[in-house]
Amino acid sequence: MTEHKTLTMSDIARLAGVSESTVSRALRDNPIINEKTRKKVQQIARDHHYQINESARNLRLNKSHTIAVVMLLDPACGQAISDPFLLDLLGNVADELTKNGYDLLLSTTQVLGEDLSPRYLDSKRADGMIIIGQGAQGQQIDALAGSRKLFVVWGADRPGQNYATVGSDNKKGAYLAVRHLIETGRRRIAFLGDSRHPEIEQRLAGYHQALAEAGLNPDPTLQVETDFSSQSGYEATRDILMTEGRSFDAIFTVSDAIAMGAIKLLGEKGVRVPEEVAVSGFDDIPTSAYCTPSLTTVRQNTAEGGRQLVKCLLDQLAGKEQRSVVLDVELIVRQSSSGESA
Amino acid sequence: MTEHKTLTMSDIARLAGVSESTVSRALRDNPIINEKTRKKVQQIARDHHYQINESARNLRLNKSHTIAVVMLLDPACGQAISDPFLLDLLGNVADELTKNGYDLLLSTTQVLGEDLSPRYLDSKRADGMIIIGQGAQGQQIDALAGSRKLFVVWGADRPGQNYATVGSDNKKGAYLAVRHLIETGRRRIAFLGDSRHPEIEQRLAGYHQALAEAGLNPDPTLQVETDFSSQSGYEATRDILMTEGRSFDAIFTVSDAIAMGAIKLLGEKGVRVPEEVAVSGFDDIPTSAYCTPSLTTVRQNTAEGGRQLVKCLLDQLAGKEQRSVVLDVELIVRQSSSGESA
Repeated sequence: MTEHKTLTMSDIARLAGVSESTVSRALRDNPIINEKTRKKVQQIARDHHYQINESARNLRLNKSHTIAVVMLLDPACGQAISDPFLLDLLGNVADELTKNGYDLLLSTTQVLGEDLSPRYLDSKRADGMIIIGQGAQGQQIDALAGSRKLFVVWGADRPGQNYATVGSDNKKGAYLAVRHLIETGRRRIAFLGDSRHPEIEQRLAGYHQALAEAGLNPDPTLQVETDFSSQSGYEATRDILMTEGRSFDAIFTVSDAIAMGAIKLLGEKGVRVPEEVAVSGFDDIPTSAYCTPSLTTVRQNTAEGGRQLVKCLLDQLAGKEQRSVVLDVELIVRQSSSGESA
Repeated sequence: MTEHKTLTMSDIARLAGVSESTVSRALRDNPIINEKTRKKVQQIARDHHYQINESARNLRLNKSHTIAVVMLLDPACGQAISDPFLLDLLGNVADELTKNGYDLLLSTTQVLGEDLSPRYLDSKRADGMIIIGQGAQGQQIDALAGSRKLFVVWGADRPGQNYATVGSDNKKGAYLAVRHLIETGRRRIAFLGDSRHPEIEQRLAGYHQALAEAGLNPDPTLQVETDFSSQSGYEATRDILMTEGRSFDAIFTVSDAIAMGAIKLLGEKGVRVPEEVAVSGFDDIPTSAYCTPSLTTVRQNTAEGGRQLVKCLLDQLAGKEQRSVVLDVELIVRQSSSGESA
C-alpha cells in the first residue's frame, strides 16, 4: 500500500518506454509530447497514484523549460572540461534538472562576458542560468550581476557579493584536513593551489587557521601556485622537493587530481607516503578511494550541490528572495595520511 | 606574417571579452548577438585576418544552431553521469560544437525511447542528435533508426547496423593489451566487463583472439561480469581471488575505473601488482598515469572522438552520406603490467 510513495519518475519512464523528461512533460500536459504518449504516461501515473508537484507545474507555464548551464574553464588548461570534480557536479545538476522537467543547455566558455544574459535569457532560449565556476578573482560575475539575477553560481560566498552562490564550506574543509595532518605529527605542511580563485582563497584561510591554532608559522616558500591538474601537482612537488634547504613532511592540495600528481612524484623519488610525507587532497572524486595509497581528502557533496543549485534557481524563478547556500564538508581519512587501509 | 593562421576563435573571444560561441555567431552575423558586439568581433577578426568557413555558415542558415547530446546511462548505476571516460568525451564534444557555433542541449536518460526524435528534431529544438552509448545489446537505437537519421552514435560499428557510429577499434585495443600480458609471461588472464554492451562484446573478441594466437584456451570461470565502476571491479576481483582452485596471473578490465578497483583489492589482500598479478585497464582516463602503480591501459582518443562525432553529424545535416568511423587505439604500458616507471 506504499507503492504510490515509492514510484519515481524514472520508474514511470521505464514502464512507458520513454525518457524521464518526457514523463515530466507528459504529466504537465505539455503539447510538445504527442497525445498518445501523454495519455499513456498519465494513465500509468494514475494507476500508481503518482503525485505531481503542482506549484512546480505552474512555475513553468509559458517558459522555455530550459536552463543554461555555463561551465567556466581555466584558460590555462586549454581542454574543455577536464576537472573530474566539476564533471561530477555537472552530472548531478543534469540529474536534478531532468527530475524537474527542465532541459539543460550546456555551454563551456573561458570568459563570462556580458553576452551571456542576452544570449540565453533575453532571447528566451533559457529561463535561467547555472554558472559553474567563478574564475580567478571572481571579477567576471560581478559584471553579470548588474543584469536580471536569473542565475546562481557554484563557488564561494564572499562578503559584498551581489549574487547567490551554492558551494562547499571551503575554509572548514581545509581546516579539518590540515588540523588532521598536524594531529598526526606533521609540522611542515605545503599548500598546493591557486589562491586567486575565491574558493581556493577560502581554503588557504582554513590552512592558515589550522596552523595558527597549533602555533605554527606558515612558510611562504611552501605555498606553491598550481592549476587543478595532476600534471601541475607533479611539477610543483618536484619543485619544492628539489629546492635546496626546503623541507616538508606533509602536502595539502586543493584538489584530488593535484594530490595524485604529488603522490606520483614522491613515489618516483623514493619518498614514502605517508611515512615521510603525508598527503591530503580535496573533493573526494570517485577514483580517490581506489588509488594506492588511497587518498585522504575533503568530501564535497556534489549530489546535494546539484540539488541546491537547481532549487536556488527555481526559487528565484518563482520570485522568492535569493539566498546563498554553504554546504557542509567531511574529512575522509585514508592511507595517504594514516597509512591504514581505508 | 603567420598571425592569421594561428589566431583561434578562443583568441578572438579573449580579445573581445565575450565567449567563443558569441564570436562564432557574431562572425556569421547572427542577429541574436547585439550589433555593437557583432561589429566589435568582426573588426577584431578582420584586423587579424581571421578566416570564416563559409560552407559551415551556409549550412546553418534557418536552423536552431543547437545539437542535442543524449547520454545513455546504465540503469544499474543510478547516478547520472559517473564514468570518467564518457565525461571526458562529453567535454570534447562540447568543445567541438562550440568551435562550430552550435549550442549543446544535454540530456541524460536510461531509456532511448521513440520520443527522442519528436522531442528534439520534430520540435525544431535541435538540428541533430549525438547519442553517447548504445546500451546493453544495442537494441534501443535500432528502434530510433527508423526515423530520420539526423543522429550519430558513440559506440561499436556492427554488421547490419542501420545508423552511423563513431567509436574506437575495441577489438584491436583488447587484443593489444592481452597480447602484451601474454608476452610478459602471463597465461591465466581474467576478463572483467559486461559483454552485453556492443563495445565490450568487441573487446571480448579481441581477448579471445590474443589467447587463441598464443594457443591458450579461455577459461570461462575467469570471465566475470561487472558494470563500469571501481566498486564492481573490486568485488569481482575479490570473488575470483576467494574462489577455491581458481588461479590467475593477470586481469584485463574493460575500463580504467574497473582496473583501479581490482588493484585496490589485490593490494588489500597482499597480492603484488604486477609481480604476482598484472593488470590492464581500457580508456586511459587522466588519473590512470597518476595511480600507484600507474595503469597499463588502451588509450581511446576522446579529442578525435569529439571531432569525428561532430563532423559526422554536420556532414549528415549537409546532406552527405553517413559513414561510420573507427578510431585507432594505442596500448600504453605502465607499471601495473611492467613494473617499470612510466
